[in-house]
Amino acid sequence: MLGVCYYPEHWPESMWAQDAQEMAALGLKYVRIGEFAWSRIESAPGVFHFEWLDRAIATLADAGLSVIMCTPTATPPKWLIDLYPDILPVDVKTGTTRGFGSRRHYDFSSENFFREAMRITEVLGQRYGEHPAICGWQTDNELACHDTTHSYSANAKAAFQQWCQQHYGNIDNLNQAWGNVFWSMEYQNFQQIELPYLAVTETNPSHNLAYRRFSSDQVIRFHDEMIAILRRYAPNRFITHNFIPMSDTQTDNAALAKQLDFVSYDNYPLGRTDLFFANAATPNFKRYMRTGHPDYASYAFDQSRGISHGPFWIMEQQPGPVNWARHNPRPEPGMVRLWSWQAFAHGAATVCFFRWRQVPFAQEQMHAGLKRTDNSPATAYAEIQQLKQELAKLPALPETPVVAEVAIVTETVAQWVTEIERQGDSYNQQQVEFAYYSALRKLGITVDFIGQDADLSAYKLIIAPCLPIVSKAFVDRCARSNAALVFGPRSGAKTPDLTLAPNLGPGLLQQLIPVKVLSVETTRPDCHDALHFADKTYESARWREELSEHADLMVVARYHDNTPAIVQAQHNYYIGTLTCDTFLYDFFAALAKQYGITTVQLAEDLRLVRRGDLTFIFNYGATAATLNLPATTQFVVGSNQINPFDVVIYR
Amino acid sequence: MLGVCYYPEHWPESMWAQDAQEMAALGLKYVRIGEFAWSRIESAPGVFHFEWLDRAIATLADAGLSVIMCTPTATPPKWLIDLYPDILPVDVKTGTTRGFGSRRHYDFSSENFFREAMRITEVLGQRYGEHPAICGWQTDNELACHDTTHSYSANAKAAFQQWCQQHYGNIDNLNQAWGNVFWSMEYQNFQQIELPYLAVTETNPSHNLAYRRFSSDQVIRFHDEMIAILRRYAPNRFITHNFIPMSDTQTDNAALAKQLDFVSYDNYPLGRTDLFFANAATPNFKRYMRTGHPDYASYAFDQSRGISHGPFWIMEQQPGPVNWARHNPRPEPGMVRLWSWQAFAHGAATVCFFRWRQVPFAQEQMHAGLKRTDNSPATAYAEIQQLKQELAKLPALPETPVVAEVAIVTETVAQWVTEIERQGDSYNQQQVEFAYYSALRKLGITVDFIGQDADLSAYKLIIAPCLPIVSKAFVDRCARSNAALVFGPRSGAKTPDLTLAPNLGPGLLQQLIPVKVLSVETTRPDCHDALHFADKTYESARWREELSEHADLMVVARYHDNTPAIVQAQHNYYIGTLTCDTFLYDFFAALAKQYGITTVQLAEDLRLVRRGDLTFIFNYGATAATLNLPATTQFVVGSNQINPFDVVIYR
Amino acid sequence: MLGVCYYPEHWPESMWAQDAQEMAALGLKYVRIGEFAWSRIESAPGVFHFEWLDRAIATLADAGLSVIMCTPTATPPKWLIDLYPDILPVDVKTGTTRGFGSRRHYDFSSENFFREAMRITEVLGQRYGEHPAICGWQTDNELACHDTTHSYSANAKAAFQQWCQQHYGNIDNLNQAWGNVFWSMEYQNFQQIELPYLAVTETNPSHNLAYRRFSSDQVIRFHDEMIAILRRYAPNRFITHNFIPMSDTQTDNAALAKQLDFVSYDNYPLGRTDLFFANAATPNFKRYMRTGHPDYASYAFDQSRGISHGPFWIMEQQPGPVNWARHNPRPEPGMVRLWSWQAFAHGAATVCFFRWRQVPFAQEQMHAGLKRTDNSPATAYAEIQQLKQELAKLPALPETPVVAEVAIVTETVAQWVTEIERQGDSYNQQQVEFAYYSALRKLGITVDFIGQDADLSAYKLIIAPCLPIVSKAFVDRCARSNAALVFGPRSGAKTPDLTLAPNLGPGLLQQLIPVKVLSVETTRPDCHDALHFADKTYESARWREELSEHADLMVVARYHDNTPAIVQAQHNYYIGTLTCDTFLYDFFAALAKQYGITTVQLAEDLRLVRRGDLTFIFNYGATAATLNLPATTQFVVGSNQINPFDVVIYR
Ligand SMILES: [Zn+2]
Ligand SMILES: [Zn+2]
Ligand SMILES: [Zn+2]
Repeated sequence: MLGVCYYPEHWPESMWAQDAQEMAALGLKYVRIGEFAWSRIESAPGVFHFEWLDRAIATLADAGLSVIMCTPTATPPKWLIDLYPDILPVDVKTGTTRGFGSRRHYDFSSENFFREAMRITEVLGQRYGEHPAICGWQTDNELACHDTTHSYSANAKAAFQQWCQQHYGNIDNLNQAWGNVFWSMEYQNFQQIELPYLAVTETNPSHNLAYRRFSSDQVIRFHDEMIAILRRYAPNRFITHNFIPMSDTQTDNAALAKQLDFVSYDNYPLGRTDLFFANAATPNFKRYMRTGHPDYASYAFDQSRGISHGPFWIMEQQPGPVNWARHNPRPEPGMVRLWSWQAFAHGAATVCFFRWRQVPFAQEQMHAGLKRTDNSPATAYAEIQQLKQELAKLPALPETPVVAEVAIVTETVAQWVTEIERQGDSYNQQQVEFAYYSALRKLGITVDFIGQDADLSAYKLIIAPCLPIVSKAFVDRCARSNAALVFGPRSGAKTPDLTLAPNLGPGLLQQLIPVKVLSVETTRPDCHDALHFADKTYESARWREELSEHADLMVVARYHDNTPAIVQAQHNYYIGTLTCDTFLYDFFAALAKQYGITTVQLAEDLRLVRRGDLTFIFNYGATAATLNLPATTQFVVGSNQINPFDVVIYR
Repeated sequence: MLGVCYYPEHWPESMWAQDAQEMAALGLKYVRIGEFAWSRIESAPGVFHFEWLDRAIATLADAGLSVIMCTPTATPPKWLIDLYPDILPVDVKTGTTRGFGSRRHYDFSSENFFREAMRITEVLGQRYGEHPAICGWQTDNELACHDTTHSYSANAKAAFQQWCQQHYGNIDNLNQAWGNVFWSMEYQNFQQIELPYLAVTETNPSHNLAYRRFSSDQVIRFHDEMIAILRRYAPNRFITHNFIPMSDTQTDNAALAKQLDFVSYDNYPLGRTDLFFANAATPNFKRYMRTGHPDYASYAFDQSRGISHGPFWIMEQQPGPVNWARHNPRPEPGMVRLWSWQAFAHGAATVCFFRWRQVPFAQEQMHAGLKRTDNSPATAYAEIQQLKQELAKLPALPETPVVAEVAIVTETVAQWVTEIERQGDSYNQQQVEFAYYSALRKLGITVDFIGQDADLSAYKLIIAPCLPIVSKAFVDRCARSNAALVFGPRSGAKTPDLTLAPNLGPGLLQQLIPVKVLSVETTRPDCHDALHFADKTYESARWREELSEHADLMVVARYHDNTPAIVQAQHNYYIGTLTCDTFLYDFFAALAKQYGITTVQLAEDLRLVRRGDLTFIFNYGATAATLNLPATTQFVVGSNQINPFDVVIYR
Repeated sequence: MLGVCYYPEHWPESMWAQDAQEMAALGLKYVRIGEFAWSRIESAPGVFHFEWLDRAIATLADAGLSVIMCTPTATPPKWLIDLYPDILPVDVKTGTTRGFGSRRHYDFSSENFFREAMRITEVLGQRYGEHPAICGWQTDNELACHDTTHSYSANAKAAFQQWCQQHYGNIDNLNQAWGNVFWSMEYQNFQQIELPYLAVTETNPSHNLAYRRFSSDQVIRFHDEMIAILRRYAPNRFITHNFIPMSDTQTDNAALAKQLDFVSYDNYPLGRTDLFFANAATPNFKRYMRTGHPDYASYAFDQSRGISHGPFWIMEQQPGPVNWARHNPRPEPGMVRLWSWQAFAHGAATVCFFRWRQVPFAQEQMHAGLKRTDNSPATAYAEIQQLKQELAKLPALPETPVVAEVAIVTETVAQWVTEIERQGDSYNQQQVEFAYYSALRKLGITVDFIGQDADLSAYKLIIAPCLPIVSKAFVDRCARSNAALVFGPRSGAKTPDLTLAPNLGPGLLQQLIPVKVLSVETTRPDCHDALHFADKTYESARWREELSEHADLMVVARYHDNTPAIVQAQHNYYIGTLTCDTFLYDFFAALAKQYGITTVQLAEDLRLVRRGDLTFIFNYGATAATLNLPATTQFVVGSNQINPFDVVIYR
């Protein structure tokens, strides 16, 4: 299904009815509203204005549209900030208060804001909870965006002290767990605990990890309470939240998703590519600057699917150039349609476009919409018309979920550990994980993202690109699994309190593979060593571990100095280094062959994925390709020839 | 005429008389004094010391020199700061107070400073207003230098709230004009308004533009009041101010110049080239590192001429290496003379050198003077002796002003808009405007800089490289003009409150050329597309607009995908992209030919300009050139052969 | 002798005895303890715990080890900070307080901390002063590390005002000395004086230099008082301090070393190379990334020897990868031994390794030790076993000190001057000095580092790469010296208050060589000019002076425009520019030949040094080399063939 984000409060009421009719005609079913409308709903403490909102909902409903209502907590109004200035968060890098004037200006540790956010949620729940035009609710908006999970406020400090008390019971446990003896950092009581910022030099990694966990818990406490209120008033409506990329939430994404009916994701492939690949060389960057990297969008889709109870949604789909990246190119013609199909292919139930009409004022006036500010249809409009027709060819999207033979094990805590303990400037956990994922996708392999608590039985190959802290339960489950298991560098190296595994890295994973990490080095990314695997030479750089040799270990790859780089015990592999994309591709191709995983050979910019009985192929490249599918192929969309930026779907 | 900046307070009184005699012998007529002398004039509140200043003026007058007296407000003394700490400005990027210990440590919104600045101005006006040795006054010094136009102080906030009240009348108008509904940013009253800094993420562009206008108004309020006081006491003396580059004032330069008799400019071509071309590749940078870019100095001269009522002055001319750029090379031999002649050629009345003698102490001890600290003449000394002799060959500089067939329309608000709304990291309004200007200068075309309110009748070609906000009156005047009109990208795209033009870009300019900007993209500067114009291929990058096609539009240039890049309707042109220097050169060459504008073919580093009946040629290159002028040419300076870094003048 | 750093408080008491026995067995003699143990020694105000420390010392003594005890002042405990929050230093770049949570969180101007630091020193001195197991004391730890010499605190400001009063007597002297008249910066009394930070633009260089001197004096005041207390209680024990690189202390290193028995240095060649050569091109960087630059470690050794009364120690020797640089490679096999031998060769008495065992918790958990966290021996362990055996071949290290024919004159104030007055972004005094040093070392020349007050009689060649402020006494001693004297650019250019030398640069040095610096230019490092010397062409860039010509001057090298670049008068040389490594090598080779200084031709990565009757050769390269020593050579370690990363020692 398709939908759109709409802001009736931005437009004269006289335009609403035509807007609604056009939405319906375009095949849009859902309309999300209200997430920034607090100041219009409550213009002063307790002074509410619902009439306009009632009329807006009615107008949409009249056109046959279904409304997703949002809690407006991402933008508390000025009067509220002035009443309770402690709502404002404090920058952890500078100690400066982050003021009113944009959005997300609230501190998750402000009890005043917590109470007020739940109050407005309750007010809205009471009025609109199960309103017949409303099919579901969105909580807040893009939680944690703009680095708002972390705050250096007095409220955050007091709450963190309390959190520490709850987690460690007494101060000796905490001192012991964090190793505070190290630099005489021992505390005598919980009231002495500081936030791990603005010290003379780096603060204790354990202290930092505890603060990350606390901050994540604060976001979840806020979010879960909001969901609980909505459940009271809207027990028969879905509740979702629109996630930003998982690496940006600084929150345990799986925990954040837990109480939701399903996860939504805001998909901006071009802006994200501009940021994520900012250091790419000119030709590498330019080729994808108007399409996004072929694996970036699906990376997010597969992650969203992994933490969502039901099929995920795209709540905001980029419809044209945006305004917030360093450079904001225009999508190649066809890409809005392609991205939408790609979301469906990877398991999405619904794609909503952001926004109906470009708004001529304020911070996002340069952000495209489906319609231009003069109400003419923008480029994406026709692509959605085409999409509507193509969707009509399918009775419904397959109920069968996306099925993967390969899983990547991921978790937010891995990102935290590597951000806290860089050790080498060029180690970036997200880019490491993405490189593994992209190599698999180039091989046409479908990938699930799973947590340590997941059922492993469905997979032939399970890969943990970076999992510094592993649980005994997970390792035990791995030990019982028949899948091939691949662990990247740093895996198992740390205890839950971010100290070194007592038996050296990979810690508990030694139960699976008897290797020890004797030392770790990091190097400049431009200073690489040779890595020898299967008669070919690749690159090792940035992170390289010294691995022990052992009678029960087979050496799969070696460094130039003949020391082991990758080792194997039965079907378990440990990779002790970061390497190049070519290696990952060849290595996973070899594993796929060995463990009977289907791969597909496609042109470089083509990607293939299956959902139920449908196969989707996407062309991210500027040249057409011939697919060589058998003559009997039953095409739903397209043909044996795939054009640039085009989609082919067949059974 | 020539002059010099002098600081008698820095030197033993015993040196003054000889200094004055040497100045006179060198052909210097004017001596600027006093702009940093407040602590010597008033050593404690109300404790004045005029004797030394009286004697200094008398000594200079005795040598036949004429004095420009300054108000010393750029450096309030410590006792004044301690009396009124709210004088200190506050950094908008950090919220930190900017302390005493250098210069310009005052906030334009401090009423205490406003009163004190006017008091010292009045004191000096009373004593020296029409002193016979004093020919004129300079206000303050380099207003707004060191980013002092903007302040995050409580004073600035209160004054901004008042300014908003005056401009918008009631708070609903303001909320409406700024689109504050967007993120629930609506205010209930003017006292709630914040300064647009240090928020969680970007603040409203309209809010920012209002703050820029307010800040500019504060500078002008300060400056105009100072001028008004001086006019009372010195009605028969000129009043001027020494401007830094127009892009650095963060003030409406034309408005700032309005009450002055003429504009002065501080000309430091090497330091400015080091900063302005900081990203240039090695060979491009190195060739001009000791000359400055051939068009940089004249760019400032032509801008100064454009906002000055009478012929402008150079109040400070770089005489050797300076101290404040990232690198501070020595001018090539001859460049001090060349820059001086170039200023005269572009319309200057007087060139004053900064400073008479290098000072051996404090912040500028590495800044060259005409004399070294040991009182020996520095390199520039001989160049000025030559200049004196050459000037003597002319009865006077031509009274006829510089006459241009081509004008560039410019205004400070265009810079503000593009700074507030980057949209692409590599869009830089100053570099865009400079590229247009430089292309014209390479063609030997003389250029006027004009505002939207200027009389257009004199020009054959009028170019607006970037003019996001256009007035109806200007567009009407354009419509009545016979000149060819060229508008660069972003022109007309915005309303005066920095919202999008309701009829899409180029907004009101659609009255002249019926094109619509359907969307805008920005790209990495290294990722360019082809631009096809007149059978040649150029580059488009950084900023590219999607233009509508229309029966009344001719397409002048197209992108590689065949969509229009530059369109024309009658003699009006709209350029939808940023491009390369080669394109601009070829494009303006073609327009010049078509519209009968004289161009001159010169070697790459030569520049030609005419003032009255004199033609000036300057050689910025390291190789000599032959000019091929007719045998009858009447040379005032030089000959048919122009040496490196040399000047030729002929009638 | 060898030693190790040990933290009994980090380990179960049950491990101590075995640790001690293993240390002894490895040939380690000294064990440093206690420098971060304050919170374990004094758990609350006046609540002391000595039992554990008594037992730890006893355990080490029982194994025959000798203890170096430290004052624990680098890490004041939380309860002390809470009692006296003014202990925390304030960041001079932001004005933000630097909080508790890491180390060195104290302000040298806090009288509360001064008193408390001396109290704990006294307590420890009383208890352990001449304890039989304790051979000596270390003061604090890495004084000034993490930029803690400078503070923007109220305490620092008050103390600086007092310092100024003591140094200038009355405020007029100070205003005069600093040239405060320049921008009306004159003070009326000492209480008005600000710290030279956070002003609107750059503050007065003289003000800055005074603040640097004051800050250095504060560190020395603190350190000297601590030494005085220890002397009272341990008159028969040595006192040392472990220095970080001399450029990082922001303290007059010679003055800091003055009251110590000898200097210790913490030697981390890889981390330091990563930072010091951060801008090096890939191949240049990569070749030394696992060895350190061949001259970096010895640069520190020779500097340490220069300020130490007795033979210096290495108190902390890097044993493997560290955790604090941007990238942290693993030393090539053999490098820990090589670095240790190199320290002995350059005059060290003892090398202690940091640390005995890698600690699994807190900030340094990724920092290697001699043993891994699981108590297995790390790579360096075997290298130290080899070292022990090799040391056993020598009865003792030669008592004869290292003897040098060449000296480099250095002082911290030179660094301060060039940091305060960049003038060109690419001038870096440490890299200039290092380039000179490295050129000499490549020629096999042994180098002493001396101060201006040193006896010059021992040297044939004395070089001052950068000495902006010279004393009359030093110049007089130079004038009486028979050595060749070489002065780099900027030498003699400034007065002690950081104003320009009244007779132009090189100021007082004109007594030795009658040249005048007429002007100074700085250029982008990529924009170099040709430098002609002895029929070859080199590069000049970054800093270039215009030198006067004079009948008594010989021109040794000229720029491309034929102006003098290096001049000579008798045996005195003045170099007016920064240049390339090749030039320095060729220039010093020529001088060495002329002045009879022994040089040795070795392969590029080999280094040679002599101590007493021993000659040491070190191979920093990855290829073996043949030394071609006579058959009669008496090898102590190695042979005529030197392997990669190997050491050869012979008589
Ligand atoms: Zn190899
Ligand atoms: Zn083309
Ligand atoms: Zn040459």
